Amino acid sequence: MKLLSGAVAAVDHGGSLGRASALFPHAPQPFLDLSTGINPHSYPLFDLPATALSRLPEPGRLRELAEIAAKAYGARSAAHVVAAPGTQILLPRVASLVRPGKALVLGPTYAEHARAAAIAGHAIVEVGDFDALADADLAVLVNPNNPDGRVIERHRLVGLAARLRAKGGLLVVDEAFMDVGPVQHSLAGDVGQGGMVVLRSFGKFFGLAGVRLGFALADQLTAERLEAQLGPWAVAGPALEYGIRALANAGWQDDMRQGLAADAKRLDALLSRFGIAVAGGTSLFRYLSFSDAASLFSALGERGILVRHFADRPHALRVGLPGSEEEWQRLESALAAWASRRDDAPKEC
Amino acid sequence: MKLLSGAVAAVDHGGSLGRASALFPHAPQPFLDLSTGINPHSYPLFDLPATALSRLPEPGRLRELAEIAAKAYGARSAAHVVAAPGTQILLPRVASLVRPGKALVLGPTYAEHARAAAIAGHAIVEVGDFDALADADLAVLVNPNNPDGRVIERHRLVGLAARLRAKGGLLVVDEAFMDVGPVQHSLAGDVGQGGMVVLRSFGKFFGLAGVRLGFALADQLTAERLEAQLGPWAVAGPALEYGIRALANAGWQDDMRQGLAADAKRLDALLSRFGIAVAGGTSLFRYLSFSDAASLFSALGERGILVRHFADRPHALRVGLPGSEEEWQRLESALAAWASRRDDAPKEC
Repeated sequence: MKLLSGAVAAVDHGGSLGRASALFPHAPQPFLDLSTGINPHSYPLFDLPATALSRLPEPGRLRELAEIAAKAYGARSAAHVVAAPGTQILLPRVASLVRPGKALVLGPTYAEHARAAAIAGHAIVEVGDFDALADADLAVLVNPNNPDGRVIERHRLVGLAARLRAKGGLLVVDEAFMDVGPVQHSLAGDVGQGGMVVLRSFGKFFGLAGVRLGFALADQLTAERLEAQLGPWAVAGPALEYGIRALANAGWQDDMRQGLAADAKRLDALLSRFGIAVAGGTSLFRYLSFSDAASLFSALGERGILVRHFADRPHALRVGLPGSEEEWQRLESALAAWASRRDDAPKEC
Repeated sequence: MKLLSGAVAAVDHGGSLGRASALFPHAPQPFLDLSTGINPHSYPLFDLPATALSRLPEPGRLRELAEIAAKAYGARSAAHVVAAPGTQILLPRVASLVRPGKALVLGPTYAEHARAAAIAGHAIVEVGDFDALADADLAVLVNPNNPDGRVIERHRLVGLAARLRAKGGLLVVDEAFMDVGPVQHSLAGDVGQGGMVVLRSFGKFFGLAGVRLGFALADQLTAERLEAQLGPWAVAGPALEYGIRALANAGWQDDMRQGLAADAKRLDALLSRFGIAVAGGTSLFRYLSFSDAASLFSALGERGILVRHFADRPHALRVGLPGSEEEWQRLESALAAWASRRDDAPKEC
């Protein structure tokens, strides 16, 4: 159990090429960014109607998005769906749904949850054991977990939510990567029972992180409270249009799930060829935990390939999926160069 | 002085064509929407780089936007600028900067300010007199005011902010329409003194309400607090790109200000031909206050022209600017038809 400071300072994230350039100023450009879990195969871009930019987003279009999202995610109805400009901006609002108390975060995980809970006035403790969460006023976990892919089964989550609800607490389950499963452990269909909020991210699976679209799924009263906090026109025109089209396209989603699963296997096989065992992850990123992680991070960075490292866990790395064949080959060459340097290094005996 | 209920229910706004169709089901389509103060002459659209949609917004690009916005709005530096996905989503966060107390809103004005203050836990009173605001913990006004265009002079605002600051209070000045002046009364350059937050809207003047971009200007510490609430990636890729390009284009802005001022004069002259005196407004909308307002609202609506009416002030209307010549002529015809019906009506003597 780790007591986290209540600081609300900005935390470090993947996905910034500016930061990559600062870290590896001599790396060949452009960077291959494998530091996020964002799908490199974006949903196909299309021309937006000019009114998506010029006019205020239409309330009827937002209702349509909520209906399509409810169906795509498995929520019982649109009344359980709150659309927002990304899940990120929802985190402090969700954490504020319960009075300041004890927030327990199942770690290690996405650092913004602790920051959001601190903003909401909670005292935050990171716990490593699921059962410890029952003691919380606000319990937060990511399922499947980022970065290690740990999955908590649905029946355990439903049980925890019931216990928290009984004492006025709340379970927050961030399903940012649940689009690639295991969907049988999603709580999307259970939120009507109350005591839980599920977060779903649009940008990661659909490869459209720049449009900023995310959802909270909750019982109807909680959904209304969150909507009141956001106010009208929270979702931009481009996000509305992409959300409606992409979330309604079940065929693309099914194909993409299969493609990503195959790519994840390919990445595991590639890493394994260079002696790197994959410790976990999802189809959108792989989690590595091994003693040479820092050396691999630097070697890849110097060759313009950015993966995610973690200041507090030097043995851990998270690696996203390459997109094009060229990117796969670039990664393979960089891994080969690193492995050969490693194998040539004088052994300390 | 009017005591407002603490209800946080959704409020009615202009700008919804769905609502227009429900109100006037037999009106010729498409509607001419004059129910907002959004510039009908949008900043020229351009092709976005695919990465604006696919990648997470880059922190360096956000800094660039803040620098350009500081210059465009007259803030001392980017450290005073918080970019957000529209000012709307900022309102409850700004209202939460002071402990729940007495919020005084200078009315009548944009209804979301009272709603946001209620969400933040304040008791809200609408006052009609500027001097009454000194009694507030949170004082809110719109300058120039929506819908009537009332302007409060800068020196009075600076004085009020100092009084509020001295007791831990806050003055919020919503400068949503200040792009069309009178810029000498903007507080953008004064926010460093503390005790005040200025809100600036991107979508109205640039005619890009769908991209969702707005700013809070504040002293550095307050700006940091607001940024922490929003978290990373609050501004979408398209909003970043349009914001950077349009706010940097001072030539377009100057030309547009002149064009809108001329259009506003033209609208006043047109209304005056039909016996309607304009009571106020800005270059982006005109404010009418006359006994036949309800009849004009209906007559225009039945001809597919939507203007803004106000449930609690049946004598008032707000009329936005037509864009194309065709729109001007459509408005003129509808006004002529309304005036002729009015003049033919039997007089009650």
